[in-house]
Amino acid sequence: MSKIIHFKNKPSIISCGNCVGKLESDGPLKEYFDLTDPDSKFGMETWEKAESEMVRRAYEVALNKAKLRSEDISLVFGGDLSNQCTATALGMKSSGVAYAGLYGACSTFALGLGLSAMSVEGVSAERAAALASSHYSSAERQYRYPLEYGCQRTPTAQNTVTAAGCAVLSKQIKNEPIVSDFLPGIIYDAGITDVNNMGAAMAPAAADTVTRYFNEANCSPSDFDCILTGDLGIEGHSIFLELCRTKGLELSGVSNDCGKMIYDTERQTVNSGGSGCGCSAAVFTGPIYTKLKNKELRDVLLIGTGALLSPTTVLQNETIPGIAHLVRIRSEI
Amino acid sequence: MSKIIHFKNKPSIISCGNCVGKLESDGPLKEYFDLTDPDSKFGMETWEKAESEMVRRAYEVALNKAKLRSEDISLVFGGDLSNQCTATALGMKSSGVAYAGLYGACSTFALGLGLSAMSVEGVSAERAAALASSHYSSAERQYRYPLEYGCQRTPTAQNTVTAAGCAVLSKQIKNEPIVSDFLPGIIYDAGITDVNNMGAAMAPAAADTVTRYFNEANCSPSDFDCILTGDLGIEGHSIFLELCRTKGLELSGVSNDCGKMIYDTERQTVNSGGSGCGCSAAVFTGPIYTKLKNKELRDVLLIGTGALLSPTTVLQNETIPGIAHLVRIRSEI
Repeated sequence: MSKIIHFKNKPSIISCGNCVGKLESDGPLKEYFDLTDPDSKFGMETWEKAESEMVRRAYEVALNKAKLRSEDISLVFGGDLSNQCTATALGMKSSGVAYAGLYGACSTFALGLGLSAMSVEGVSAERAAALASSHYSSAERQYRYPLEYGCQRTPTAQNTVTAAGCAVLSKQIKNEPIVSDFLPGIIYDAGITDVNNMGAAMAPAAADTVTRYFNEANCSPSDFDCILTGDLGIEGHSIFLELCRTKGLELSGVSNDCGKMIYDTERQTVNSGGSGCGCSAAVFTGPIYTKLKNKELRDVLLIGTGALLSPTTVLQNETIPGIAHLVRIRSEI
Repeated sequence: MSKIIHFKNKPSIISCGNCVGKLESDGPLKEYFDLTDPDSKFGMETWEKAESEMVRRAYEVALNKAKLRSEDISLVFGGDLSNQCTATALGMKSSGVAYAGLYGACSTFALGLGLSAMSVEGVSAERAAALASSHYSSAERQYRYPLEYGCQRTPTAQNTVTAAGCAVLSKQIKNEPIVSDFLPGIIYDAGITDVNNMGAAMAPAAADTVTRYFNEANCSPSDFDCILTGDLGIEGHSIFLELCRTKGLELSGVSNDCGKMIYDTERQTVNSGGSGCGCSAAVFTGPIYTKLKNKELRDVLLIGTGALLSPTTVLQNETIPGIAHLVRIRSEI
């Protein structure tokens, strides 16, 4: 049975919006971001409320660009890293839109894109939206240590990206980028236990999804302008390339990683690069979508990558499985 | 724009499986449950691992009943209440199946049913599965107090159900119950702040979804054998009925609540009844599905209800919004 979902009706991405933190707006992709804030608090009193506010704004910007109102959207797929995914839920509570909460860890944006495409492909929805967010400061205190503690991190640790990104999809609109394929990921446990090396935990899942895609899709890496993993970071991306190589897939010329792109890893202190649901959401809704729209990019694979752990599972000596959801996005000629 | 998703291709629920704790297997629905365990630990050393094991077993039982293997399933939609939804993810990690993680709080099972129906309705999937779980002991220590503390609870508090339930859906199979409609919920904030009264937080969302359904669907309560809310409990269900009444919808003769059905609330010490993702998952995959299959029930509305909070949002003085996803299930004549 074929595992790749091919969309024949050309679900189109008609607009994108995003909202990023101070560090991200100071990085190499700054020109592609819609909104930012000098203290990454967006006028709120806590980091958690700031993240919800980013979600609200990213959704609003995406709607505004498409000249749509919330009632024009049939269904929003969204999620984040916070316990019980409250950043997205509270960010969307004033929207009045039907809401399907997702949890895919850092793969959430790609999962949302795939499910949005699935719902506009059929009869289910006229338009759908995918959104995902993360905030460095809310994630640090939930997963690691309070910021005030000033804990030093290992070189393989990644920096949670402060960002929310939203993509609006519609039944085919001529000339807009389309989602052509979706390959949902399988949970892959490579036995990794180092919580400071999420890249290593997610890379095997990414390699699994990508090699399954190429084995089934009858295409080769050179058919793509860009094969983009979600947030493996410097360490994880090199493991990913090596794993693909051992499976006979050479991707080094065409592959990049959102966690490497979003920061200047030489100049900015981000250890192994960016991570978090907001990382691939911001990079996709920023430079990638812009370049798909103006045809600088023609054919892109986005592989959202997530590490399926919690502080509790780590304390209980569980390994850290990964998951990777793949979506193929093409600019329409 | 119509908000109800009508499925024309008759996505069929071909099998269900469940696995419940000691208290649930001692309740009025015991004959409808597949698996249980005398100490609710299922051979595991922690409550969290026990919950993952329930997920694994419920999925396995559902597959076995349908004489399917995991590779026959295109996509599983699943989730739970644990931080980062690890109960489901770790329970599914040996399955080798494509996995889309959901977070809908206690509405997760209905959301999964709706999205599974959506994916088998179109070209996306041949078969899909919905699953959800919760465990009293892992939820208590995550949301409230350690069990050892022996904290007394208020009369409006509900008892988190220890259960996992799974439903397998397929493109139409003659004579099997079908999902005919799906109305995804809108986040509804009634300003509730009492964390010991989740029923009150969810009831307004349930009333909103149900009244929107009846306003649009051109049918009346008497068309249904059963209008079943997810887990409002005794207190929440009476609020729900009252809210519907003020909107001109009298449901008292035909409505029931999974949180009231799963326990003998006179005999068992469960305060306002059951709650948790596993509550509606177990009641649906148990008695409701059995009766739909043998035509004792012909037409059922299941309204999964969730409260969108976390311990952090409560500490930050956020209100508790609710969400309610509706699915209509009919027995095929």
